[in-house]
Amino acid sequence: MKTKIVIKDSERLVADLSKAYRAVAKQTTIPILTGFHLQFTGESLTITGSDTDNTIQITEDDNCSSSQPCAVVVPARIFLDIVRKLPAGEIQLKIGENEISITAGKSTFELKTMKADEYPSFSLDDTGVCVEIQASDLANGLRLEYACSVSAMRPTLQGIHIVSKEKAVTFVATDSHRLGSWTVQLDQELKLPKMILPATAAEEMVKLIEDTTDKVTIHCTENSLRLTCKNVTYASRLISGTYPEISRVIPTIISTTFVANRDELVKVLERVSIVSKEGKANMCRLQVIQSAMPSLLISASQEGMGKVQEEVFVSDLEGDTFEMKFSTKYLLEALRHMKAKEVMFQASGANAPLIIRPTGDETGFALILPVRSA
Amino acid sequence: MKTKIVIKDSERLVADLSKAYRAVAKQTTIPILTGFHLQFTGESLTITGSDTDNTIQITEDDNCSSSQPCAVVVPARIFLDIVRKLPAGEIQLKIGENEISITAGKSTFELKTMKADEYPSFSLDDTGVCVEIQASDLANGLRLEYACSVSAMRPTLQGIHIVSKEKAVTFVATDSHRLGSWTVQLDQELKLPKMILPATAAEEMVKLIEDTTDKVTIHCTENSLRLTCKNVTYASRLISGTYPEISRVIPTIISTTFVANRDELVKVLERVSIVSKEGKANMCRLQVIQSAMPSLLISASQEGMGKVQEEVFVSDLEGDTFEMKFSTKYLLEALRHMKAKEVMFQASGANAPLIIRPTGDETGFALILPVRSA
Repeated sequence: MKTKIVIKDSERLVADLSKAYRAVAKQTTIPILTGFHLQFTGESLTITGSDTDNTIQITEDDNCSSSQPCAVVVPARIFLDIVRKLPAGEIQLKIGENEISITAGKSTFELKTMKADEYPSFSLDDTGVCVEIQASDLANGLRLEYACSVSAMRPTLQGIHIVSKEKAVTFVATDSHRLGSWTVQLDQELKLPKMILPATAAEEMVKLIEDTTDKVTIHCTENSLRLTCKNVTYASRLISGTYPEISRVIPTIISTTFVANRDELVKVLERVSIVSKEGKANMCRLQVIQSAMPSLLISASQEGMGKVQEEVFVSDLEGDTFEMKFSTKYLLEALRHMKAKEVMFQASGANAPLIIRPTGDETGFALILPVRSA
Repeated sequence: MKTKIVIKDSERLVADLSKAYRAVAKQTTIPILTGFHLQFTGESLTITGSDTDNTIQITEDDNCSSSQPCAVVVPARIFLDIVRKLPAGEIQLKIGENEISITAGKSTFELKTMKADEYPSFSLDDTGVCVEIQASDLANGLRLEYACSVSAMRPTLQGIHIVSKEKAVTFVATDSHRLGSWTVQLDQELKLPKMILPATAAEEMVKLIEDTTDKVTIHCTENSLRLTCKNVTYASRLISGTYPEISRVIPTIISTTFVANRDELVKVLERVSIVSKEGKANMCRLQVIQSAMPSLLISASQEGMGKVQEEVFVSDLEGDTFEMKFSTKYLLEALRHMKAKEVMFQASGANAPLIIRPTGDETGFALILPVRSA
């Protein structure tokens, strides 16, 4: 006997299917993972999409009524396309043994389905540690994914290291050429285990929470992190292994410091990048000029093409002048991650990494290794 | 001695460079065609971009002042990037023998240039026929490029055939599976020669004129068409050859006619397309149902995936019922090109092409060959 289901608001269903679709396997040898798992219970629908590494589960309350409890796996891309293109409003579903019919007005679709009991189980149990964190704080930490390694040579560097200590959580990412660190102060102590969250999952989680002003819930087990924001749960497998100790790479003796306007630096570097990105190393030269109005010269050149020079006034200059080369891309990404109006540069000699720190309330820093001159 | 030039409004320059960039050669063995030809005369700047088949020339009056007349070829992509990223406002240029410097505030770029006298001459002379036409009328005709062939096997079908006769201009495009025709009635007689305009140029010209409510000027020679809209001139080489005679492929004996709502049909076909596009032929079945409320059934199915059926009420049904298969894509493209609220379908038996005509003021039609059943 077929199960009859009425969906009240197709637009709400489209919004939730679109979110769950992000975790659906796009290229896989396991056909059932290309589907949505739909679980109907009375007036509640639970949508699951997963590629086994990442799982998104969304519960819709009061948007459907089903004649009996029922579960089915439908082809995700096509099902989403159909619901999106149907006129907004009510949709009727009829679920049979191997097929589902989708009807709205004079439109009727019939799709082959897959068996719900062959879908992997992603039971999100309640073991492990569970804490609450402000969505914007978490998002700032997860945005460090920009600094993660994209190489599979060192798997631990493909993730963000998350460490909590007393009332602080610190996020660290590095690809061994540059590093980003971000610390969030909390009202209460979080007892999270150390973990390495894959950069790809961090990126998706940011999209999920960036418009949220509330707190979200993090739930950790030994090998997974689960984020719950309203009716959406995103679970990601963690990267196993030991994250490198980073404290020894942070210079302790600083030879030059100065402060500059972050917004202006971003605009200047975007222009410098027009020239520098034409070269393989995407490299620019930073040079501090000491005078009554101290400034930072930023320049790049490409043989056969041309060159650029920009000047930015700096303040609070202390210590030696310096002239060093850096990746324009790394400088830009580090500065864009920060929000502060002004940033402090700290240099420690020709071959030591440059430190950039936001001023004000933000507690983070970026570390960028210089490019050695040929 | 270097020529000094001041550009007053960098945003205006960006807008015009962006338009001219469309014609700049992106992949070419002739390096100078990757540049903009800039010609400064007093307070006037003429920008030229060309890949030799298509040339865009834009004249800016009163946006610059140059110390002396001067012409130079600058690398187009990089020059456009630089001007776009500079702060809005005034820019200073200094043009030397082999380089140009671009300065705004504390930014200075220096680029290698190419010699203006090595740039091909695109003198747009005044021979040939010159006529005025309403921009929207021309755009409707040029939008038929959707029906042009993309195959190089029959070069003449890669263009739109434009024929004027007394006070009418007719545009025709076909890829031999479907055909679109559009006629524009004018106030006066246009004495244009017959010509075949490349589909790619037609598409670009539509972008250039679609926001214009004024008349534009067309200028034809034996092998080129030139369109002038305000301060922009777009010249395209024409396709040589004889366009096929189309009158004999238009059915004269009609066996079924009916009228349907165009908007509704487009939405229905977009949904049908979700299923039909999964197959190689992207094929749907049209079936006319005669009853007190006659309707058109549109359906598609894919083995192993599913099927869809849609129903649209029709009016003014006359003649035989029919059941035929068509490309969903061709039906959609033909209906989207028209603006009329209602369209008339005319069928002439199992293997004859279907005619779709807009009702009301529009004088055009689309012709689509049925897909033969296997």
